[in-house]
Amino acid sequence: MDYEQIKYEVKDGILTITLNRPDKLNAFTGRMLSELLDAIDRADRDDDVRAVVFTGAGRGFCAGADLSGGANTFNAENRGPVDPGLDGHRDGGGLLTLRLFDCLKPLIAACNGPAVGVGITMQLAMDVRLASEEARYGFVFTRRGIVMEACSSWFLPRLVGPQQALEWVMSGRVFSAEEALRGRLVRSVHKPAELLPEAYKLAREIADNTAPVAVALNKQMIWKMLGADHPMEAHKVDSKGIYSRGKSADVREGVVSFLEKRKANYPDKVSKDMPSYFPWWQAREFK
Amino acid sequence: MDYEQIKYEVKDGILTITLNRPDKLNAFTGRMLSELLDAIDRADRDDDVRAVVFTGAGRGFCAGADLSGGANTFNAENRGPVDPGLDGHRDGGGLLTLRLFDCLKPLIAACNGPAVGVGITMQLAMDVRLASEEARYGFVFTRRGIVMEACSSWFLPRLVGPQQALEWVMSGRVFSAEEALRGRLVRSVHKPAELLPEAYKLAREIADNTAPVAVALNKQMIWKMLGADHPMEAHKVDSKGIYSRGKSADVREGVVSFLEKRKANYPDKVSKDMPSYFPWWQAREFK
Amino acid sequence: MDYEQIKYEVKDGILTITLNRPDKLNAFTGRMLSELLDAIDRADRDDDVRAVVFTGAGRGFCAGADLSGGANTFNAENRGPVDPGLDGHRDGGGLLTLRLFDCLKPLIAACNGPAVGVGITMQLAMDVRLASEEARYGFVFTRRGIVMEACSSWFLPRLVGPQQALEWVMSGRVFSAEEALRGRLVRSVHKPAELLPEAYKLAREIADNTAPVAVALNKQMIWKMLGADHPMEAHKVDSKGIYSRGKSADVREGVVSFLEKRKANYPDKVSKDMPSYFPWWQAREFK
Repeated sequence: MDYEQIKYEVKDGILTITLNRPDKLNAFTGRMLSELLDAIDRADRDDDVRAVVFTGAGRGFCAGADLSGGANTFNAENRGPVDPGLDGHRDGGGLLTLRLFDCLKPLIAACNGPAVGVGITMQLAMDVRLASEEARYGFVFTRRGIVMEACSSWFLPRLVGPQQALEWVMSGRVFSAEEALRGRLVRSVHKPAELLPEAYKLAREIADNTAPVAVALNKQMIWKMLGADHPMEAHKVDSKGIYSRGKSADVREGVVSFLEKRKANYPDKVSKDMPSYFPWWQAREFK
Repeated sequence: MDYEQIKYEVKDGILTITLNRPDKLNAFTGRMLSELLDAIDRADRDDDVRAVVFTGAGRGFCAGADLSGGANTFNAENRGPVDPGLDGHRDGGGLLTLRLFDCLKPLIAACNGPAVGVGITMQLAMDVRLASEEARYGFVFTRRGIVMEACSSWFLPRLVGPQQALEWVMSGRVFSAEEALRGRLVRSVHKPAELLPEAYKLAREIADNTAPVAVALNKQMIWKMLGADHPMEAHKVDSKGIYSRGKSADVREGVVSFLEKRKANYPDKVSKDMPSYFPWWQAREFK
Repeated sequence: MDYEQIKYEVKDGILTITLNRPDKLNAFTGRMLSELLDAIDRADRDDDVRAVVFTGAGRGFCAGADLSGGANTFNAENRGPVDPGLDGHRDGGGLLTLRLFDCLKPLIAACNGPAVGVGITMQLAMDVRLASEEARYGFVFTRRGIVMEACSSWFLPRLVGPQQALEWVMSGRVFSAEEALRGRLVRSVHKPAELLPEAYKLAREIADNTAPVAVALNKQMIWKMLGADHPMEAHKVDSKGIYSRGKSADVREGVVSFLEKRKANYPDKVSKDMPSYFPWWQAREFK
């Protein structure tokens, strides 16, 4: 697939995905959704991708849904040409965050400017969020008369607590990076010129020190266990993992390199060495 | 219903509910419970109520259960006259918080003074909590030999995390507004004279800028998705909401007013325009 | 059972459990696991134990799994003599945290030094974590090629939020007590000489002021309701508790002593006076 509305660039093990409609503040479209879904699939298949950084071209991250359809922007029965690929009965933002929720690579949001509506809700299914001082956030749904989307009612209170989630969503307020940091939506705020370097620094820390299969498994354990009703559900998966990975070449290398105080060189690949018990969950059906 | 132990006052779209037994630090009774349940029903039916502020008359918010029944205060088989309306086999505080959990209007606690036992646990099912510097909090159950109530074992760890919840509940300590803020129980602390103005400011921000039906739906999405085991459950509800509300008069007005840079005038009412898929959940039975 | 790798000391109602292989930084073994499981059972049976403080002998808390088995450390089919008691198909750390999850006494971690791997994941099922300035933490699993264990994928995001959990686990970084505090993994950081006194101060606050049966019930309500999908599940248990404990000798003493402004003397014991509805949950099976 050729990308028109995003850029996909891999360098030294880090993929950068750039939302790329700068003249529209990277407003979200059906085409952008299709390209993002394709890019995530590609990243999961590509062992050269150890981490993914998301950012926006120009001065914005993503201004939310493209409102050029005017009054019918959210009307599935009368949508303009900006959403050709969208099943009118499924929320497009949710198709994206559900895909991110199953992704095997670390996902780092480097939010360079305004991020409202789906521009911020898409980030909630990423793993870590960094902000530029120039970032602005808004769960503006109540100020457009619409409902929150992209599964944000599930993600947001788990990230920032229900009190903060309710205040931001009920008011629909646009707020600063500083308020986002105080509310624990983002993990850190940076000067604009330092945003991408800081995002790459975290990506490098992961890429340079860790076993790819272990990162994929542990990432999925954390996200999926958010829905488990008892720690025993984790114990079942932990036990399979300790048993299965415990005799793997990766673990032998991990322990021996540690004892020998040298850098590890992990042989296993996400593309072909995920353990037989993975995935341990049932795919969740729509309806 | 005539209110004897609370005050119910609507002004400019904001309802203020005042716990009103100031000579008893607004201690909780069966009568007060009945009045609060009636007041919430009334607020949900009244489209002139866009937000609700809870506070206490006099120097306290609520001193907890009225202990004038002495040793038998919590004995359902030998209760004094303070609890005439209470089913002895159901916790009264829980009847209140379960009703708040289904409420359609924003609920803001303006905690002006001591709030212990049910005085604080009732606040946990409200959306946002503000504190006066003179507020004091106590989950004092272990210091009376009793169990926590009002579903607080469900709400509290979701609001402040299990570590903070366990320390406050196991110790039964009475603590300051400042400790409540550090622990994220309250969102802000104010000088006594600024408490109500700040609560009204937040209520106004919501009332003046947002669509009532969208606020009701989004509020319920956040609260109800706290119990969902997978983001797909949010996606199902999001998709119904985007489809159903996407063609509504509210969304047309929300988008068009935004593009025209003017204040929106939302036509839909909570009393009659909630979408057909609402409520999307099954009522949960007691037993 | 005689303890070789831990110390078990009760004084004035507080049990101190010390991980005691100081020459190995208290690295975790199958023997240590067996001793800890036995010690928790003993603490639950002993009414003289009102709270438990965990710490490490020497300069470490626990360095994680004993790696003296080298490449086969985690290989269940070829394990060295350090893990004689371990069912190779179940994760040992999980056996410990699942037991802690059902414990009836307050559990306070006083982390005096390095705590990595199971050295920190075991602490996640304790109620409150205090750190020395000399503590160091690491969820180092991805740096050994292994999966996180001890049900930490369930506990950690509930304690610190998924964003912080993902960053620590995906990077495998070793981090300071200060970073642990900012991330809300620990509730406070202390000078080394003040760590145990502060832990005992919190233990004393509980032991000196509260009813043992109420502490046991409330502690379990908080932990178990983390897995409940609706506050009604809490209301059912609350209602049984208010009804059953409301007529207990403990509550009579709790209310009367409060009204008489004197210290309470609670008669009920955890060993024999837990209410008939306890436990209210089904034991969760391993498959």
